[in-house]
Amino acid sequence: MNRLGVDIGGTKIAAGVVDDDGLIHARFRRVTPRTGDGADVMAAVVDLILEATTSGHQITAVGLGAKGVIDTQHGVVLQDGQTLPGWGGTDVAGPVRAATGLPVAIDNDVRVTALGEASHGAGAGIDRLLVAAIGTGVGGGLVFGGRIARGAHGTTGEIAHLLVPGPGALPCGCGRFDHLEAVAAGPAIAAEFTRRTGRTGVRLQEVADLMRAGDDIAARTIGDAGRVLGAALAGLATALDVDGVVIGGGVAQIGPGFFDPARSMFADAVLEPLRDIPVRPAALGTDAPLVGAAELVRHYHVC
Amino acid sequence: MNRLGVDIGGTKIAAGVVDDDGLIHARFRRVTPRTGDGADVMAAVVDLILEATTSGHQITAVGLGAKGVIDTQHGVVLQDGQTLPGWGGTDVAGPVRAATGLPVAIDNDVRVTALGEASHGAGAGIDRLLVAAIGTGVGGGLVFGGRIARGAHGTTGEIAHLLVPGPGALPCGCGRFDHLEAVAAGPAIAAEFTRRTGRTGVRLQEVADLMRAGDDIAARTIGDAGRVLGAALAGLATALDVDGVVIGGGVAQIGPGFFDPARSMFADAVLEPLRDIPVRPAALGTDAPLVGAAELVRHYHVC
Repeated sequence: MNRLGVDIGGTKIAAGVVDDDGLIHARFRRVTPRTGDGADVMAAVVDLILEATTSGHQITAVGLGAKGVIDTQHGVVLQDGQTLPGWGGTDVAGPVRAATGLPVAIDNDVRVTALGEASHGAGAGIDRLLVAAIGTGVGGGLVFGGRIARGAHGTTGEIAHLLVPGPGALPCGCGRFDHLEAVAAGPAIAAEFTRRTGRTGVRLQEVADLMRAGDDIAARTIGDAGRVLGAALAGLATALDVDGVVIGGGVAQIGPGFFDPARSMFADAVLEPLRDIPVRPAALGTDAPLVGAAELVRHYHVC
Repeated sequence: MNRLGVDIGGTKIAAGVVDDDGLIHARFRRVTPRTGDGADVMAAVVDLILEATTSGHQITAVGLGAKGVIDTQHGVVLQDGQTLPGWGGTDVAGPVRAATGLPVAIDNDVRVTALGEASHGAGAGIDRLLVAAIGTGVGGGLVFGGRIARGAHGTTGEIAHLLVPGPGALPCGCGRFDHLEAVAAGPAIAAEFTRRTGRTGVRLQEVADLMRAGDDIAARTIGDAGRVLGAALAGLATALDVDGVVIGGGVAQIGPGFFDPARSMFADAVLEPLRDIPVRPAALGTDAPLVGAAELVRHYHVC
């Protein structure tokens, strides 16, 4: 059985025909129309989906991941995520169902990415999984028993606001300097490098390049951010009693210079019974939201 | 229907006849035999239970809370909690079932206390509840949908190891100085007061008395610990998406000087959708483990 997984991002809309094993058989994409009107985005989404469903692959359902706070029951965007103007209030499930007649499910893109890693990526086979997404911002998801864990306020897995020793070099999205995002997000690491060296206008990629070229301050700045992440995740993992952790996102892609200090500090700070649980880098990269969206619609669809 | 709730502590064993509304109709207690042999503790437990079941109250089941890591499926203590010598390895459910013929359930005393507050205390009616127990140590429990949340390693709700800005004045039970317990546990607050004033041999109760007498350093020391607790709980509450928080334990009993800064910082640091969730002091005091143990055996019993 093939399902279509769709990732509605701020710059592009991507779709993949995904089978039961999480393998992607065909890919489709569009540039996201940034007109300030969610209806224009949905026109592009529907157009892309119709291209996929008429491409010769039999597709039985459509799952979507999108920015913002999502009402998963009704398939509507409650709040945009500041990345896509006019996105808040958009009905996503309605137009897709009307155009395809297929079952449709939608959730926040970070949660859907977590589900992708949990179902067919680095977290496959782990019952209670914590996924951390460390990029321009910090996000995450909890996938327990193969399902995205949910509460009443849409914040489950939102790890950006975990308390850390601060102050970070940039404020968290909520304004505080003692939250994980203020220390571990890519721009925060770059700003910390500026704080330590006085070198302005440096981006994370350059700090990572400097680290690889042997720069000690760059290496320590990235390593310190990894250690704070590891210590914060250890406290959360203990309180949640998870069976494994997956760390993805652009910052994690720096590789061992970030990931190894994070994993090592996690093992130091976590309570003893969890010392040996797997802590792994994400495995699916940008395919994770497509695989996760296709998985999402196996579990339920908007009624 | 009455059930018997039993709390096996390091100094005393308490039992209460609890009805469906969480009301306690009769109480029984024994001094805990500290012989270093769990079988002696169980002899006293069984003796106490038989006194209760033959006291004229009809009792349909027995629930127990006890120190340590508990195998709730088999009703056996896996590890003692350092407070009761010889307790690890003790079969609790077996002797109680053999003596009474009644359904029996057992869990860790902090989790059972959380269940008591969730079912008939400050957390009644809250679907996803986080309970923090701040005393000589720091513990907690998660009660979701009326049930104690559990993972595979027995650490669910274990909030002592949440990352905080340190160093605290005493190490956490695990040895680290940047964990919540190193800052917010009673002995840690007293040690922090010593650090700030040079006054040695001061216990938490004296710091609290000084605060009430107008001592500024005492007030700030207690308030600072409350603020760290509030900020740490805010991060966890956001990541878990809980609907309410209950704070209990001996330190919480200091009252507003500790609780108000904790609640105020929680509201400052939590993500906006959770800003108005209830954060309440525990309501049942030392009755909570009795009420919770009686509630526990409504849900399941050792087979």
